[in-house]
Amino acid sequence: MASTSTDRALSPGHGRTSRLANALRMLAIDAVQAANSGHPGAPMGMAEMAEALWLRHLKHNPADPQWWDRDRFVLSNGHASMLLYALLHLSGYDLPLDELKRFRQWGSATPGHPEVGHTPGVETTTGPLGQGLTNAVGMALAEKLLADRYNCDGHTVVDHRTWVFLGDGCLMEGVSQEAISLAGAWRLAKLCALYDDNGISIDGAVAPWFADDTPARFRASGWHVIGPVDGHDVAALDAALDQARTSERPTLIVCRTTIGNGSPGRAGTAKAHGEPLGADEIAATRARLDWPHPPFEIPADVRQAWSAASRGAAAQADWQRRWDAYAAAHPQDAAELARRMGGTLPREFGVHWSEVVAATQMRAETVATRKASQHVIAELAPRLPELLGGSADLTGSNLTDWPGCGAVRGGQRGGRHINYGVREFGMAAVMNGLALHGGFIPFGGTFLTFSDYSRNAIRMAALMGQRVIHVFTHDSIGLGEDGPTHQPVEHVASLRLMPGLDVWRPGDATETAVAWGVAVQNAHRPTALVLSRQNLPAQPRTPDQLAAVARGGYVLADRDGARAVLIATGSELALAMAAQRQLDAAGVPVRVVSMPSTTVFERQSAEWRGVVLPAGLPRVAVEAGTPRGWGDLGCVAVLGLDRFGASAPGPQLMAELGFTPERLAALVRGVLA
Amino acid sequence: MASTSTDRALSPGHGRTSRLANALRMLAIDAVQAANSGHPGAPMGMAEMAEALWLRHLKHNPADPQWWDRDRFVLSNGHASMLLYALLHLSGYDLPLDELKRFRQWGSATPGHPEVGHTPGVETTTGPLGQGLTNAVGMALAEKLLADRYNCDGHTVVDHRTWVFLGDGCLMEGVSQEAISLAGAWRLAKLCALYDDNGISIDGAVAPWFADDTPARFRASGWHVIGPVDGHDVAALDAALDQARTSERPTLIVCRTTIGNGSPGRAGTAKAHGEPLGADEIAATRARLDWPHPPFEIPADVRQAWSAASRGAAAQADWQRRWDAYAAAHPQDAAELARRMGGTLPREFGVHWSEVVAATQMRAETVATRKASQHVIAELAPRLPELLGGSADLTGSNLTDWPGCGAVRGGQRGGRHINYGVREFGMAAVMNGLALHGGFIPFGGTFLTFSDYSRNAIRMAALMGQRVIHVFTHDSIGLGEDGPTHQPVEHVASLRLMPGLDVWRPGDATETAVAWGVAVQNAHRPTALVLSRQNLPAQPRTPDQLAAVARGGYVLADRDGARAVLIATGSELALAMAAQRQLDAAGVPVRVVSMPSTTVFERQSAEWRGVVLPAGLPRVAVEAGTPRGWGDLGCVAVLGLDRFGASAPGPQLMAELGFTPERLAALVRGVLA
Repeated sequence: MASTSTDRALSPGHGRTSRLANALRMLAIDAVQAANSGHPGAPMGMAEMAEALWLRHLKHNPADPQWWDRDRFVLSNGHASMLLYALLHLSGYDLPLDELKRFRQWGSATPGHPEVGHTPGVETTTGPLGQGLTNAVGMALAEKLLADRYNCDGHTVVDHRTWVFLGDGCLMEGVSQEAISLAGAWRLAKLCALYDDNGISIDGAVAPWFADDTPARFRASGWHVIGPVDGHDVAALDAALDQARTSERPTLIVCRTTIGNGSPGRAGTAKAHGEPLGADEIAATRARLDWPHPPFEIPADVRQAWSAASRGAAAQADWQRRWDAYAAAHPQDAAELARRMGGTLPREFGVHWSEVVAATQMRAETVATRKASQHVIAELAPRLPELLGGSADLTGSNLTDWPGCGAVRGGQRGGRHINYGVREFGMAAVMNGLALHGGFIPFGGTFLTFSDYSRNAIRMAALMGQRVIHVFTHDSIGLGEDGPTHQPVEHVASLRLMPGLDVWRPGDATETAVAWGVAVQNAHRPTALVLSRQNLPAQPRTPDQLAAVARGGYVLADRDGARAVLIATGSELALAMAAQRQLDAAGVPVRVVSMPSTTVFERQSAEWRGVVLPAGLPRVAVEAGTPRGWGDLGCVAVLGLDRFGASAPGPQLMAELGFTPERLAALVRGVLA
Repeated sequence: MASTSTDRALSPGHGRTSRLANALRMLAIDAVQAANSGHPGAPMGMAEMAEALWLRHLKHNPADPQWWDRDRFVLSNGHASMLLYALLHLSGYDLPLDELKRFRQWGSATPGHPEVGHTPGVETTTGPLGQGLTNAVGMALAEKLLADRYNCDGHTVVDHRTWVFLGDGCLMEGVSQEAISLAGAWRLAKLCALYDDNGISIDGAVAPWFADDTPARFRASGWHVIGPVDGHDVAALDAALDQARTSERPTLIVCRTTIGNGSPGRAGTAKAHGEPLGADEIAATRARLDWPHPPFEIPADVRQAWSAASRGAAAQADWQRRWDAYAAAHPQDAAELARRMGGTLPREFGVHWSEVVAATQMRAETVATRKASQHVIAELAPRLPELLGGSADLTGSNLTDWPGCGAVRGGQRGGRHINYGVREFGMAAVMNGLALHGGFIPFGGTFLTFSDYSRNAIRMAALMGQRVIHVFTHDSIGLGEDGPTHQPVEHVASLRLMPGLDVWRPGDATETAVAWGVAVQNAHRPTALVLSRQNLPAQPRTPDQLAAVARGGYVLADRDGARAVLIATGSELALAMAAQRQLDAAGVPVRVVSMPSTTVFERQSAEWRGVVLPAGLPRVAVEAGTPRGWGDLGCVAVLGLDRFGASAPGPQLMAELGFTPERLAALVRGVLA
């Protein structure tokens, strides 16, 4: 979509504010004042940037926020949420003025930071800085991969851009460098970031703590940099955006702005950032902006100019014609793409997955669960084109690739496995962007201990309800020689605390296969697969037990007259089985419960949970990690590790730190004594 | 210390390997082979870099690894640990050859990744990439601040450099950007990083996923960049290091190297990175390097050339003379500096702290604990010059500054508060470096939810046993309107899982003052102070109760015939007290236990724990966060929050999500029913 013919008379040039932009400014000012909370400065500073982009470049249809081929707009500096709400409202999204009046109130559609799924037109949840930009890199990559795959011989059905607003805070966060570097390496030409270069952050003028030459930094990662341009000059911004559209690299437009622009007393100060202007300053701002209208009142001509209804309808109708032609010419591809963008799995997925699980159980292979995971991926991927793998530079350790997967590379087409480089946080936030865009089920690998690096992006996936699968291998001290920096201790327990995240720590290849299937089927939930470096023996299972794995916890080996329940996960499942045998010999029958996923188990019916963990039987857990948390499942003793690990061969370390059948059996006998 | 007169005949130039460096190479090769585990490629690639730095520039004394004014050497790519162990051994540190033979074995002094406090001469624990560089920035800042403060009128007692080796992985990690940007802004002229630019990471040749122009990136942050130089040419490296010493900016030396250099079959390949070369390739490498000596055998002339004993002794003796003169001329400053570098507190600290606690209790102020924290800081800081505050661009929210603290700035002296910018991870890892260097007790603030960003650096502080204090404010949904991205839910529980970290969530100003004192006195342990945004009422306490706060958990309000124990933390303490009053009225007496620190409480004697939480009384916990984890303390019910928060005013949100005395009282009655 080229620059439109919006009435430019409404948008004066350099040195003034634009009347259309002032509508955004005043809505932000009034809403923050009404809430007595929020951030007026950034919306006031970015209002002309928003006008230039939204009125002259952004391809979207307020009547259908889910239209696949819309441009994506990401507000990476999410505290400027009122700018976005004002834009959505004035463009014609289903976001009435009353909701703007209820900014930051309980149950409103206008929370303090934008939340995807909560407000129509919001593409991702932002607020934790740097991640919006990184999500946008994922979205732009998704577009490129889908366009490469599906557009053909004159049919162009995937063709949209990703636009990002970001501020100094985003650029100070390290994850921004991971995003910039990846976008440059992938040559994401249809990604354009507009930098709100206002020189102010919460602590004041940024120069003493943010002295980077930002254009040079972006150029160093292969970006096309435009500007600085006057960020309050709509025509100049429009020209820069035109230029960005022709770039073969991702583009940064440096927009020199004034935070709180329009406020005589606060413009250009940190005080404009995060508090209401107050009645007097608002009055002064109204006067300065020549905006005589009462709060929340927008003149009809301004409203008219902002409406994107007809442009949006026309754009989508144009696409619909192209889509219909494509669907007629390439019905199979069109159906597949439609299915992928709808987020549904192929009809035969469930059957196929069951076959994989059954075959894995039959093979009874002694294998590391990371290797078992790779087997499952290799089975599922050919029939699940939306699976998009990757690793943060540990492909050969995480085993996230599969035969014929091909590598995703800048400047070439195809590939289904991404070398993210050593960028765990970037990987996780890019995966969030891929999932948000649609058309992909992204998964990515690193060592479990480095989930620390990506933790907030995992949280964001959980908060947003996105299907992102984390492959966390080397899941305990069992990894051995690399030592305590690489040995997770608290990580499994800590991931289990995150609302909305499923955590699986499978005990053998079969449980790994089940976990993968559940993760893929969880359309609105991220999953962490926690996998061993070392080999684990296969456990025998009856058909009922096999079916029960998906419940997260089930009885693997029962005993008549069991006097206690032994709960085990992952690599300690075999240890529990060995302890059971020792206890058998000592005349102490115990039940072994395999609990590959406490989070899934907790969602089961009370009946199921009671069958697995009967009241009255003492429970003892074993897991090669912190013993903390098992009290919540009523365990009276835990064989765990309440210290950091050490560097030594894995089996020796396990034994030295107490993970032996003898010690577990003794712990059980101690509980029963 | 200028370039030394080490026999340069042993170090040939470009196109060959150096014989002295080959000693490092072969020790690394042989140790990895003996362990059948480890990383030979990086030591082989960086051997000449190590020779040039350690023999010609590094100021250190193997006989006294704790000598304050030594240069700091940081191996940021910690997987190259065998390089460091070989250097330490050959230089003359207390690291016998037998320990190198026991590389990566249980109980050895040579773990898989370098561990500070475990091996003499290791300055920081590395392995998680990017953090070593960031620690080094903290060390260089510490040197600068101490030099500015204590050197005077011809006395120079603080004058050392910080040297870092780093690889591609460190530079891909986003935290490296935070470190680079801060070092540039602070103009840390005595920081020099040597980049092992070998073009290879685990997934292969890095170009497709790491295409940055690294020199340009460093220049954009104000660094002085030298090179690329031939990383196997000791003379060229020596010249570059000479040049770095005269820079007024931090310096990056780009060293073009070959990973696994010297191995005919593996040099320049990813296969050289992380596995033993194997017997055949080792034989071929011995031949190529003209190194006929058996494994672990070092010729006497090479050993002699490597010894740093006499140079080190001379360097330290020179410093000792200067120190003695300084101590004579400035006895008070010298005593203070010696005390600070020794990590001990002023003699009067305990008394002073008790006075602050008592005065806080007397004031009985209703105040946010973040504000109470600021009061304590303002009281302690004037008498504790080692306290060095900061915030990740939330100074006015975290309240980490104090009257007259002054700001740390590049190009100027003084200042005790650091504007870290929006760089939580960088802040935490810089604080680790400050603490490791000695002379400082660093503390830094951000919102609790963004502890996710810095999580692995918090873990590293715990693993290293470093006194770093995290000021995490806005500690629950109680922060209100900013919404779920900013509202921690799982964070307190999750920090409690980290071995070696103390977590305090004080319930009023008095508990905040106690927590600060305990944190400052914990010389070998990091602390997370979890503080409220909103006001909390003061609780009355008897002198015994006041003394008991430091135990982490104590009885705040008992009742005769109590039928249950209510355990509360932080902002929910007042809620528990209100519920107690309601239950009193209903004839259900309950005890209220304040538990500001479960981690401290768990370290108390069984007797104390039994007195506070008597067996037989049902326990109910209340905390505005995940209910998970309280089962470990035997709680049978928890008023918590097992979902994400929402955007609304704090008090309303608390009520909507169930944090009311009524609901808590009902929960207790339900337990007793």
